[in-house]
Amino acid sequence: MEFKKIIEEKSKQAWEIYLPNLSIDCVVFGFHDALVKVLVVKMKENNLWALPGGYILKTENIKEAASRILHQRTGVTNIYLQQFRVFSDLNRSEGFFEAFENTIWNKQRFLSVGFYALVDFSTVKLVVDNFSDACEWKAIDELPELMMDHQYIFDKALGTLRKELNYKPIGFNLLPEKFTMPELQKLYEIILGKKLNRGNFFRKMLRYDILIKLDESRKGGAHKAPDLYKFDVEKYQLALKDGLNEGW
Amino acid sequence: MEFKKIIEEKSKQAWEIYLPNLSIDCVVFGFHDALVKVLVVKMKENNLWALPGGYILKTENIKEAASRILHQRTGVTNIYLQQFRVFSDLNRSEGFFEAFENTIWNKQRFLSVGFYALVDFSTVKLVVDNFSDACEWKAIDELPELMMDHQYIFDKALGTLRKELNYKPIGFNLLPEKFTMPELQKLYEIILGKKLNRGNFFRKMLRYDILIKLDESRKGGAHKAPDLYKFDVEKYQLALKDGLNEGW
Repeated sequence: MEFKKIIEEKSKQAWEIYLPNLSIDCVVFGFHDALVKVLVVKMKENNLWALPGGYILKTENIKEAASRILHQRTGVTNIYLQQFRVFSDLNRSEGFFEAFENTIWNKQRFLSVGFYALVDFSTVKLVVDNFSDACEWKAIDELPELMMDHQYIFDKALGTLRKELNYKPIGFNLLPEKFTMPELQKLYEIILGKKLNRGNFFRKMLRYDILIKLDESRKGGAHKAPDLYKFDVEKYQLALKDGLNEGW
Repeated sequence: MEFKKIIEEKSKQAWEIYLPNLSIDCVVFGFHDALVKVLVVKMKENNLWALPGGYILKTENIKEAASRILHQRTGVTNIYLQQFRVFSDLNRSEGFFEAFENTIWNKQRFLSVGFYALVDFSTVKLVVDNFSDACEWKAIDELPELMMDHQYIFDKALGTLRKELNYKPIGFNLLPEKFTMPELQKLYEIILGKKLNRGNFFRKMLRYDILIKLDESRKGGAHKAPDLYKFDVEKYQLALKDGLNEGW
C-alpha cells in the first residue's frame, strides 16, 4: 500500500484511540564499542531520519505510551525511561503532510513529550515497522540529519543525561552487568563531553563505594586484563539519593 | 453569577480557544523572612487550595501559556519559568465536576505540564481571579491540603529545584538584588532540606567567584551588621554551565 493511503486509513483510527495534539519522541541511548549511540529510524515517506515516536492512547499515561512505542518500533521491552521535556513550538511540524487534507491526524499541531531511554545495548533486537525503512544505532557524534526539531530534542536529552549523571542510575542502565573501570570512565567522558583524569576518576568511584570488584578480569586484550566490576545496586541507589556531588 | 453557570459559559469558549486535554500547573517559589514560600489559590467551587493553573491557547507554546496564566492569576510578569514534568495519570481529576455534563470542558481528561517559577518576593502584587477566593504565599513546610495531585506536583517541583540548584540561577531569581551570606545560605538550606556548615558554605561560595561584595552592610539588626553581596551575573552564568559541582 502506498504511503499516502496508509496515512489516510490510520488517520481515521487515530482520532478515535489517541489523545489529540500530543505525541511522544524517544531518545534511546545505548553504549557499545566504547561509543554512546542513539536509535534513529528512517521514515519511508520522506527518506528522513527521525527519533522513534508515536502517540498516546486515551487509556494510557505517558510512560505507558512511551514503553509501548519503544516496544513496537524497536523491539525493546522493560527499559529505563524518563520524560525530560515538552516540545511545543507552533511551527514544529510545518511543511510535513502538506499534500493531505486538513482533517488528517498527522496534520494537527503536535506537542511532543520527550523521553530518554537507557538500554543495555547487548539485549536489544531492533525491528523495522510499517512507517520506516530502517532502524539503526548511530554514534552520538555521527548522527545523520534529523527531521523537524529532532536534533534539538536529542540535544536536550543529552543535556539532561549530563545533569542527571549524578542522580540517576545511568551507568547501571547503559552498561552490561560486568564492566571494567576504563569502560565506566569512557561512558562518563562521552556523556560529559570531556576527558577525565584516570586516577581521579578511579579514586572518586571507589570513594562513592558503589562498585563491587569481581574475582574476574576481561580476557582477550593485548594488555594486562583489566579487572571487572559490577554496581552494588543498593549502595548505588542510596548514593544517588544525595547525588554523586563531588564533580568529575 | 453562580459557579456552575460560570463554568458552563466558559466551557463553550474553552473548546474553541484552548488545546484539549492539556493544562498547566505552576509552582511559584518566593523567598521571604528566611522562608521559602509557594503561591496557592483557594478555589471558589470546593473551598480547596490549589496551585495556580490554566490552559494552553491554540496559538501559544507552553511557556507563553504559563507566563500568561501566572500574569492573569497572580499579577506577576516577566518571571523565571521552567517546565519540569508532565503529570498524566488517568485518574488525576476524578471526582471533580461530577455534577456537570460530560461535554463540559473541565470534565475532560487533562494532562498537566508542571512549571516552576522563581520570583523576587518583594516585587509581587497578588491578584485574585474569578475562580478563586484567595491567592496567598504559604511556607513550603506549612502548605495547606492541596486538591487533586497538586501536593505531588509541588513535591516534584521542589525535588527539581534541589537538583537544579547547581545548574540554574536559582539564588539570582529568588533573592533581592542585594543579600547577605546568611540569607543565601538559608535559601540553600531550605531548598536542600538540610543544615549547612557556615564556614564551608562561605568558602565554597567565594571559591566559585560568583559574588561581588558590596561596600554596604545590612543595617538594623542587634548584631554586627552583615556584609551585603550581589551576584556577578556573567560569572554566575558561566559557572552554572559547568555546574557548581563541589556539593554542599
